[in-house]
Amino acid sequence: MLKPGYTLGILGGGQLARMIALAAAPLGLKTHIYAPEDGSPAFDVASAHTQAAYDDFEALERFAGAVDVVTYEFENVPVATAEFLAARVSVHPGAGALGITQDRLAEKTFVANLGIEVAPFAAVEDEASLEAALAEIGRPAVLKTRRFGYDGKGQVMIREGDDAAAAFAAIGRHPAILEGFVPFIREVSVVAARTEDGRFAAYEITQNEHRHHILYRSTVPAEVTPAVSAVSHEIARRIGEALGYVGVFAVEMFLVVVDGAQGVIVNEIAPRVHNSGHWTLDGAVTSQFEQHVRAVAGWPLGAVERLGHVEMTNLIGDEANSWLDVLAEPGAHLHLYGKAEARPGRKMGHVTRIFFEDDA
Amino acid sequence: MLKPGYTLGILGGGQLARMIALAAAPLGLKTHIYAPEDGSPAFDVASAHTQAAYDDFEALERFAGAVDVVTYEFENVPVATAEFLAARVSVHPGAGALGITQDRLAEKTFVANLGIEVAPFAAVEDEASLEAALAEIGRPAVLKTRRFGYDGKGQVMIREGDDAAAAFAAIGRHPAILEGFVPFIREVSVVAARTEDGRFAAYEITQNEHRHHILYRSTVPAEVTPAVSAVSHEIARRIGEALGYVGVFAVEMFLVVVDGAQGVIVNEIAPRVHNSGHWTLDGAVTSQFEQHVRAVAGWPLGAVERLGHVEMTNLIGDEANSWLDVLAEPGAHLHLYGKAEARPGRKMGHVTRIFFEDDA
Repeated sequence: MLKPGYTLGILGGGQLARMIALAAAPLGLKTHIYAPEDGSPAFDVASAHTQAAYDDFEALERFAGAVDVVTYEFENVPVATAEFLAARVSVHPGAGALGITQDRLAEKTFVANLGIEVAPFAAVEDEASLEAALAEIGRPAVLKTRRFGYDGKGQVMIREGDDAAAAFAAIGRHPAILEGFVPFIREVSVVAARTEDGRFAAYEITQNEHRHHILYRSTVPAEVTPAVSAVSHEIARRIGEALGYVGVFAVEMFLVVVDGAQGVIVNEIAPRVHNSGHWTLDGAVTSQFEQHVRAVAGWPLGAVERLGHVEMTNLIGDEANSWLDVLAEPGAHLHLYGKAEARPGRKMGHVTRIFFEDDA
Repeated sequence: MLKPGYTLGILGGGQLARMIALAAAPLGLKTHIYAPEDGSPAFDVASAHTQAAYDDFEALERFAGAVDVVTYEFENVPVATAEFLAARVSVHPGAGALGITQDRLAEKTFVANLGIEVAPFAAVEDEASLEAALAEIGRPAVLKTRRFGYDGKGQVMIREGDDAAAAFAAIGRHPAILEGFVPFIREVSVVAARTEDGRFAAYEITQNEHRHHILYRSTVPAEVTPAVSAVSHEIARRIGEALGYVGVFAVEMFLVVVDGAQGVIVNEIAPRVHNSGHWTLDGAVTSQFEQHVRAVAGWPLGAVERLGHVEMTNLIGDEANSWLDVLAEPGAHLHLYGKAEARPGRKMGHVTRIFFEDDA
């Protein structure tokens, strides 16, 4: 168990690391960011930082010696890096969870083996296996690289009449997974936390709206039935348990209607704090960032109740230019990530708005 | 007006600077802490820091060149330091407000000249002027050094029969002020913000309980009449206006009953974020730290509504050892200041507890 004054090491220096560091400070922890990019946003709020590559094992050795526990902000930390660190210091979540969630095929197989519903899927290695997968799953289907996809990158839809070989070329002929297209009503997610000794807490299921494959807005409460709400928590609990997970994670799901009843189909697991949990920063008793620190530190989990009807809206690219309007809006909470350049599609910040129940 | 990406310079590296820096980051600002003490708590959460003395004018010159605006966390910044910086970069609040509030005699005179009620007071330079002051004001009275007093330091009560010369010796025979003792019901304070162009916002009047002259607990709502609540805001507004104040400040007041009606008597002005405003960190829509940043940056002020019945309790000295109990208490918010050593009387952190109105 960490104690105040100890140092939390974080791999990755983006906005998630930045918000974890901002949450760690009031809990009395120092933070040390490890990231390769010059001017990483998290460097600005941390006690120390190391700017080095993820395969710079000398730098990793020094980093391991300078921190009391290591966590990370993104799932694409090389497993070799996580394992190197884990031989020297506690790493949460562990390399096992990382390995599974880095590979869409391993992840889907893992979830399906738990008896949790996922879209039909099949491995794709080449054109022949793609043709076989299409024959089995049918169209429309989504072809995704097994690794390194995010925000819609590394995936392509294959509809009736589309050329399968061209689709495979479009994702770089990387090892892939073909998934049956799920005709969903909306996308939802559960952000949850689990501790090493098995304590578990999940935030209310959240409703997510994407634009151009990037999360645009999250809303709680979600328009789901109480049954779906309960089932979604149970799914997160079982996934966390089976992964032996420590920290905050998100389960992205499709909300579907089958025979007139709502249900959910698991789409993806994110082994980290998650954009769809940013609403908790002002909208819940404990933010997902504090919760992650608590879980990783081996501390009691915080209360997950929401404070009202909450809306989180991302500021993408030059939408961040609206910062002054946000500041002028009573009750809106501005969160900028300290990124110098507002490139198109880049997450520059977000806004939370809390509507208290008695306002309704 | 500051813009995201600009740098806020902060003089002082203690918990107030730390919490200002933590509030500045989500608004997109970088922070640069200037403090003489090794291992200052605010260094851990800032983009940059300068460890140098307040009269190191070469270091101040570099600091002024590295930041876009300067603020401070404590009223004892040497006026020469503030003026040196103000010749190079905007300093908020300004040296004028600093000069008045550093000197209890100047401050009391200033408030009294606004027609706002303060305890009867008189200047004390030596034993003779102390005797004259006692004859005028009567006993009990409180003898306070004009400068550098905080948390009850530099003050002594003179009761019936006490030796006045001994009291003067006890405060080091420094230039002083004698104040009539106010038989107050309780201590209250108003934390408010003002911008350069005269916008003003005040948090609800707060009720404060001290132990050993150190703030122990703040509570809102305070047990005061609506009239006192309104008057206290009006007092803060007029003081802020007369000082041409920019930033967050606190007005400490005594709640008294005269002829059966509650009233307030101003005790002290703090030209900075204030311990009695720490409840706003989880208990108000906008925290006093964010509000200070907004005011200093020239931005719109945030909403000041409280979220419920709020209690803020300081963790003094080894009370901070209770951190794990606080973490285990649902809904309690832990704020540790990252201080290495828990000396007696040292403010190590605080806890906020919010009781939502519908729980009552």
